[in-house]
Amino acid sequence: MKDNNDIADLMAEIGQRARAAAAILASTSSEAKERSLTEAADCLRRNAGVVMEANARDLEYGREKGLTAAMMDRLALDADRIEAMAAGLEAIAAQADPVGATIAEWDRPTGLHIRRVRTPLGVVGVIYESRPNVTADAGALCLKSGNAVILRGGSESFHSSSAIYACLVEGLRAAGLPEDAVQLVPTRDRAAVSEMLAMTDSIDVIVPRGGKGLVGLVQREARVPVFAHLEGIVHVYVDAAADPDKALRVVMNAKTRRTGICGAAECLLVHRGAIDLGQRIVDMLMEAGVEVRAQGLKGSLPATADDWGREYLDMKIAAKVVDDIDDAIAHIRRYGSQHTDCILTEDQAAADRFFSRLDSAILMHNASTQFADGGEFGMGAEIGIATGKMHARGPVGAEQLTSFKYLVSADGAVRS
Amino acid sequence: MKDNNDIADLMAEIGQRARAAAAILASTSSEAKERSLTEAADCLRRNAGVVMEANARDLEYGREKGLTAAMMDRLALDADRIEAMAAGLEAIAAQADPVGATIAEWDRPTGLHIRRVRTPLGVVGVIYESRPNVTADAGALCLKSGNAVILRGGSESFHSSSAIYACLVEGLRAAGLPEDAVQLVPTRDRAAVSEMLAMTDSIDVIVPRGGKGLVGLVQREARVPVFAHLEGIVHVYVDAAADPDKALRVVMNAKTRRTGICGAAECLLVHRGAIDLGQRIVDMLMEAGVEVRAQGLKGSLPATADDWGREYLDMKIAAKVVDDIDDAIAHIRRYGSQHTDCILTEDQAAADRFFSRLDSAILMHNASTQFADGGEFGMGAEIGIATGKMHARGPVGAEQLTSFKYLVSADGAVRS
Repeated sequence: MKDNNDIADLMAEIGQRARAAAAILASTSSEAKERSLTEAADCLRRNAGVVMEANARDLEYGREKGLTAAMMDRLALDADRIEAMAAGLEAIAAQADPVGATIAEWDRPTGLHIRRVRTPLGVVGVIYESRPNVTADAGALCLKSGNAVILRGGSESFHSSSAIYACLVEGLRAAGLPEDAVQLVPTRDRAAVSEMLAMTDSIDVIVPRGGKGLVGLVQREARVPVFAHLEGIVHVYVDAAADPDKALRVVMNAKTRRTGICGAAECLLVHRGAIDLGQRIVDMLMEAGVEVRAQGLKGSLPATADDWGREYLDMKIAAKVVDDIDDAIAHIRRYGSQHTDCILTEDQAAADRFFSRLDSAILMHNASTQFADGGEFGMGAEIGIATGKMHARGPVGAEQLTSFKYLVSADGAVRS
Repeated sequence: MKDNNDIADLMAEIGQRARAAAAILASTSSEAKERSLTEAADCLRRNAGVVMEANARDLEYGREKGLTAAMMDRLALDADRIEAMAAGLEAIAAQADPVGATIAEWDRPTGLHIRRVRTPLGVVGVIYESRPNVTADAGALCLKSGNAVILRGGSESFHSSSAIYACLVEGLRAAGLPEDAVQLVPTRDRAAVSEMLAMTDSIDVIVPRGGKGLVGLVQREARVPVFAHLEGIVHVYVDAAADPDKALRVVMNAKTRRTGICGAAECLLVHRGAIDLGQRIVDMLMEAGVEVRAQGLKGSLPATADDWGREYLDMKIAAKVVDDIDDAIAHIRRYGSQHTDCILTEDQAAADRFFSRLDSAILMHNASTQFADGGEFGMGAEIGIATGKMHARGPVGAEQLTSFKYLVSADGAVRS
């Protein structure tokens, strides 16, 4: 009990410091924020050796703990990955500052001039697992958007995250910004996560970055609002009017370019009128080493009820013949996760119907679902992809980490 | 226990029906929604007598229950109020349809054309007290924004709300829209409210309309996101560079035009350098019958610590002398409710500082805080005013009851 009380006290103090820093950050100049990020990038480059030493300790701990090869890969840093982090910090530094931008502005006959301007959200809590680069990416995006951030990295990446974090702090110091603007929770104790999820007074939004276990836990337990997606159950629908070349190319890319990302295709739906094309696609996927669990098509093995709505994140895909576009839409409504879904067709009316009848965060027409990414959308970096209906949806970049306020000016106007 | 299980079953069924109706509403034409609202307005006018009869039953129940005069006034309907409701429905019908509007649109070098378009939130739950007109206003705004709505009116206004609701349903029927698009919870049992607050699968957002007791309960208990404000602790700061005429006029209006609304001023802050003007304002308020609880000024009685951060909703105001603008900002940060705060000054730099250092949903410069209202902002009707940081902030009109999705078109683009 004593330990948990200590963690509660620690987190409360971190929360109060973040709140105080957020009040200052909200009216900090764009230049200071930019400088802080470029200084942090320089620091990372200068200290690449230190970061790699810290990472070696994490990797050793990971080996002892028996992490999977995939987790070890996510954890590992090398010179290229550190350079990529530094370049990422500079890219975020170079983006336009969303804070203070006027989103809308109008006059009223009563003499009011009304402006809606962007403000930071306040304090963002980021809870992540083994990827140490989230420390730099999430820290930088929050700072850019004028938010204080509380970072809670996975215990596996504790030393790497701490070394990267030290550079973010050096950047803040060099720019004269409050060091509490970015805080790393200095304990591996999991009780810190439970505390964060309940800190409604000092955290405005939680962003979980990690597997379904972590995201599910956060979504179930959090009292603080959450920007997240639980799964990317991505469907690609091959319409009767699909162009064969585009369909073959897009499905191949959507499934196999990278199978472990949330925009990877997990289910292929084929219009009954395009069944020959569908079979060609399935054959091509199997030749590329994909296990196709099919219904109505000749795949690697028959699909079962379990295959609908399943996120494989692997060289596997479900495939099914549907009667028509409405059947495809009904399947996606029932089994999808409102992340990203795609139609392949040359029939504009079919594309329009697909776009209007579905409410996924991202809908694609004749484009690979692997484009579901803030960078590919031109938003610069992203802190994650959200599938909720509130506030931020789709890729969450600096702009999506803001709120707004109304500024009303007049010359002594009173209401009649 | 049996009763509560019955309520749970009832609410689950209402939730499922709302979800099904929302799927249809999301792609309903603007014309159908408009027609539904104008038909409902006609129905209200035709059935004014029926509505007044229902209202008479509620008033009788209210008298038996010993409701306060203020509550009885909120509950009472007459020909004018019914006409105002019908006109309100028509005004919302005439507004632009927010759904489907393109908010942003851009191209990417990869060949993607990306559009961000407005979509409905899905299902809105509205929990309100004695005002029967909320039935019409909230129902219409949700319908306009393509959302299904579950209305849970106060038990005091049960018959009036049911009569108004019957007209909304007649409008839906006339326009060929699903009747489940607007549902009124058909029981006075309070267990229905607790159910609604936990229906995360079938309700996307809850809007509570009523006193601090109701809103506080909803904010504490809800698992569903909430658009609300708990209190309007509205400050008016008279700067050293305030124009005396404007200051006298604006403070008078901000406090006394209507004392019971959330935009009414509750605390006057006076710069030490404007103390003579401050005293003139206090004298004027006292002459108008306002009880001024003052510190550093001669008021009706001395202010105590309890007067800071207090929402009187009455002919009472707190007043305090501050050292400078930063002292005023610090007071508002500490005691305000992030609803609406105002600065009176001819010094643009002071106004800019006030606007940038405070993060209230609405900040006013030389304008009465009584303008804090969706109608006055030109948004048409509002379902309420929100002070959270997420999604909707300030007046919540039809546009604020929407979310968005990304529609991405290309010509077979794949990610490299």
